[in-house]
Amino acid sequence: MKLYTYFRSSAAFRVRIALNLKGLAYDSVPVNLLKGEQQDEAYGAVNPQRRIPSLEVGGEVLIQSPAILEYLDETHPEPPLLPVGAANRAKVRAVASIIGCDIHPLNNSGTLSYLKHKLGHDQAAIDEWYAHWVRQGFDAIETLIEPGPFAFGSRVTLADIYLVPQVFNARRFNIPLDAYPKIVAVEAACAAQKAFQDAAPALQPDAA
Amino acid sequence: MKLYTYFRSSAAFRVRIALNLKGLAYDSVPVNLLKGEQQDEAYGAVNPQRRIPSLEVGGEVLIQSPAILEYLDETHPEPPLLPVGAANRAKVRAVASIIGCDIHPLNNSGTLSYLKHKLGHDQAAIDEWYAHWVRQGFDAIETLIEPGPFAFGSRVTLADIYLVPQVFNARRFNIPLDAYPKIVAVEAACAAQKAFQDAAPALQPDAA
Repeated sequence: MKLYTYFRSSAAFRVRIALNLKGLAYDSVPVNLLKGEQQDEAYGAVNPQRRIPSLEVGGEVLIQSPAILEYLDETHPEPPLLPVGAANRAKVRAVASIIGCDIHPLNNSGTLSYLKHKLGHDQAAIDEWYAHWVRQGFDAIETLIEPGPFAFGSRVTLADIYLVPQVFNARRFNIPLDAYPKIVAVEAACAAQKAFQDAAPALQPDAA
Repeated sequence: MKLYTYFRSSAAFRVRIALNLKGLAYDSVPVNLLKGEQQDEAYGAVNPQRRIPSLEVGGEVLIQSPAILEYLDETHPEPPLLPVGAANRAKVRAVASIIGCDIHPLNNSGTLSYLKHKLGHDQAAIDEWYAHWVRQGFDAIETLIEPGPFAFGSRVTLADIYLVPQVFNARRFNIPLDAYPKIVAVEAACAAQKAFQDAAPALQPDAA
């Protein structure tokens, strides 16, 4: 497998965690979003959306981390990333979606760049925007999870895989997390796991 | 089943289509987002994120349309909303995610309200923002689908369920769709299906 990745991309971070949990070896192909390498013609041929990550597997390229994560869980079921029972799975996927749909897209580099360069906002306005969506999402997630020690019990699920990169981002933007003791506890439990450690941005080959 | 819905919410529109496709009867509980009814204490007790839709089923409340759609497909497998084969499913889910993560969250009512009321942008700037994210996502989707007549062949999938409400929204905002003949063809194929017709905003009990 070949993962087109950027060390700070939290969508790529999710996929790295899942690959590590499943024990799947992969080659990293760094795409530097800061330098705009996703706009290169070569990358456009890989991923027409020009976003990160893309996963090349079996001669095909899969895009969009939510789709890639479900693919990995379907093709490599152990350890499972979703619990038993459709309602339980829906609860895990709901937390994943709050992050994947309602926090992260508002705060990713393309969105912040639009706010800064096209709409002319200063860093203070951007920081407030960033914090607003994190807080709105985390407020809900804090009521939905029940650390045990992971977000939904004793096994890692997609909820943890989405939470850890989002908490990492929140810390980068200096967002206070005191109101979220459950989320912080989940982060701590995950931080003790090698699959999460090895996926961390600072340990990636393209980290500055 | 009880669906907390708003006629114009495209996330609720997705779930209505899926319920209709599966032949599942449900009661509609309208939550008027324009009047801010999602902020009522009663609705906060149903859905701590205070977003639409929520689906009450078997004594539990499920939230987040991506999670609800997967739940409905797991618990009521016929007709399936995903194709056979993990890579095929990943391609369908990727189109769903482009809409669910990269277009819709940038353009939903909460985000547009922030741009208008907190950041002080006028309607022209908001229209440009709206169109930007639709075009960016649709440009990618147009290269990823192959109408036959639905987005991925002869059966409706999650990709169609996400596309139709997003195209409906794009039309509401007068976004030209000439560059997207495949997307428009998929929309036309879906428009001939009763499950899509019955889910349309104008036919909902809370439509003005």
